[in-house]
Parts: sequence; C-alpha cells; structure tokens
Amino acid sequence: MHAPPVQRLITELSRLPGVGGRTAQRLAFHLLRIGEEEALALADAIREVKQRIGFCGVCYNLAEGPTCRICSDARRDPELICVVEQPSDVISIERTHEFTGRYHVLGGALSPIDGIDPEDLKLAELFGRIETGDVREVVVATNPTTTGEATALHIAERLRELAPEVSVTRLASGLPVGADLEYADELTLGRALAGRRAV
Amino acid sequence: MHAPPVQRLITELSRLPGVGGRTAQRLAFHLLRIGEEEALALADAIREVKQRIGFCGVCYNLAEGPTCRICSDARRDPELICVVEQPSDVISIERTHEFTGRYHVLGGALSPIDGIDPEDLKLAELFGRIETGDVREVVVATNPTTTGEATALHIAERLRELAPEVSVTRLASGLPVGADLEYADELTLGRALAGRRAV
Repeated sequence: MHAPPVQRLITELSRLPGVGGRTAQRLAFHLLRIGEEEALALADAIREVKQRIGFCGVCYNLAEGPTCRICSDARRDPELICVVEQPSDVISIERTHEFTGRYHVLGGALSPIDGIDPEDLKLAELFGRIETGDVREVVVATNPTTTGEATALHIAERLRELAPEVSVTRLASGLPVGADLEYADELTLGRALAGRRAV
Repeated sequence: MHAPPVQRLITELSRLPGVGGRTAQRLAFHLLRIGEEEALALADAIREVKQRIGFCGVCYNLAEGPTCRICSDARRDPELICVVEQPSDVISIERTHEFTGRYHVLGGALSPIDGIDPEDLKLAELFGRIETGDVREVVVATNPTTTGEATALHIAERLRELAPEVSVTRLASGLPVGADLEYADELTLGRALAGRRAV
C-alpha cells in the first residue's frame, strides 16, 4: 500500500527499540512532511555517529579517537575503576558528579540463557587492566538485575584470586531491583554510589 | 558530557514527535550499539524517501513519480473524491477497502490560531479539480476535531456556491470526537465511511 521507499523507511524505523508498526508509520510520515534539510540532518547524524564514534582502547567506552575523554583526562583517579554494562551507564554515573575514577564498559552482562558468556564481554580486558595497573578499588556498577548481579559476583570471585589486594565494591541498594540503571535519577544513583559496600 | 557526534544525534532524534530527551538518548545508544550496516540502512532509508518521494500533481498524495498510484489507476472512480488532511489518512482509508474513488490531500486543516488559512492548504486545487472535472460526490474525511470540522464546513460552503450539483458528504460519527483519524481501527473507519452523511 505504501510506495517502496516509504515501506522501507517504516521497516527500518520499526527496528528501533520501543517503536511498533504504528509509531514507525507516524515517524515516517513526519519525516516525509518536514523539510529535506531537517530530515537529512537526522540521516547525516546517524551516518556521522557510526563513522566517527568507536570504542576506547582502554575502557571500551564510546570514543571519538583511540581513547575516550575520561581515560585521556589525567585528573581522573587511575586507581579507582567503575565497571558498567553499557556506555550509557557511564553518562548516568558522570551525571551524579560523585565519581572521580575511571570506567570499564563490559558491553553487557553475563546471561548463559542468552548465550552471553564471560568471553563475550570485556572481562579479560578488565582483569588485564587490574593486573598490570595500580588499582585500589573496583566499583561494580552493573545493573541490579539477575544478570547484572551474576556479573558482579563473577568479577568479585575472579578478582579475589587474581588481585586479592584490590577491594571490590558494589553500588549500594537504593536502586529498586529489576530497574534499569539508565533511568535512575541523579540523587538515587549518587547515594547508591556514596554508600557502595564490599561484595 | 556526550561526544559532539553523539550529542548531535540525540538532538536530531529528539526532534521526532513523541521522542523526549531520555528516549532520544536511548535510541542514540541503540544506534551506536548495533552494526554499522543496520544503522546506515536507516540513514539511507531517510535519504531515499526524501529523494524519491514527492507529491502527486493531481491529488497531493505522496508519489514516487509525477502522479500517485491511485490517480494513475484507471479503475478508481474519478467522480468520487475523498478529501483528507494528510497522506497518512489515505493509507488509513485504503485499509478499509470501502472506498473506490480518488483522493485529495489538503496538507493540514484550517486553523487561524496557528496561522493556517485556506491558501496554506490545497483548497484552490481541490475546487479547481471539481470545477473542471466530472465530480459527483466529495467525501470530506478531515479529522473529527475542531480544525477538521472547520475545514469540512469551509469546503461545504464553497462547493455550495461553486458546484451546487456536487453532493458533499462527511464521514459518519463512529469516530470519537477529538481523536486522530490515523489511529482509528479499520472497522470503525470503514463504518464511518459507509454511513457518511450530507453536510
């Protein structure tokens, strides 16, 4: 019923998370209605982000160059590493202004049922950083979900063997269990960070 | 806090209808996470739709060439014209399989408060089609909202002067007032079409 280019756009839009068929159609017609310049600005922004943004060679956060802004910042404490699942979690924690250390982005959480095993995450890279670096504390800030908790436990166990001198902490409760770290408000997340406890 | 290309993408995404700041960030990180090919497929679909889709020279529906599929289809009754606000409304009505005529897309509804006057819509073009063509009936299928009703009244009044032999009808009630035609289900919309009444 739609012309092929319109149908293709609807299909591509409906691949986005939380966008169903009706919403995709609504967005497509919006893009058809607006000026060419505004629509192409979105297309170009997508293209640019895929071309210019990669992963930091140290912490696997998003980066415009070989290392991210935080790893390149000499004022950030290199002895303190906060481990998160996704780059968006770095943004959430930075927003609290409570954390002065560096990050390590795993790229997900352990979930054997979904086929996500330790080698699918940046865990070896994390252990490598800790073994070669002068790390004092690892704050495990994975989501307070089943998979996030399992990942935290895995990290704590491995570090007890590999680097028993490093203290491993976990964000304090205050985050409702089952919630998504990305949606926590700054205050709650800041308090959870301040009240972190040993695993 | 975000790298400039990421911030730019979030800004562009948040211009979409119904997409707030948090949703835009979530969509941006989704686009960063997925493969380059999938992300660029969306960028290309937007670009392609703006390059290949224009407006039909007859009815102002979306069209891949000079005229749309419906205007190019000789089996569609040229004596019956359904007037809608947006191209998406054509899709909604086509989905009912109840309408065998042709369309005229106004590009909006009269709304003096928003500065949308008759000359901002394809009204002169509609009256031109009716004066030169052999039109039997005009079904006014603008939205059952204040502005949609005002537009229907305007069309009915003008046609009473210009072409008193043409009957002007309006979609039957069945659509809840204040609702958006685009979201009506096929059955309700089909019934409203079948029960259209003279204005």
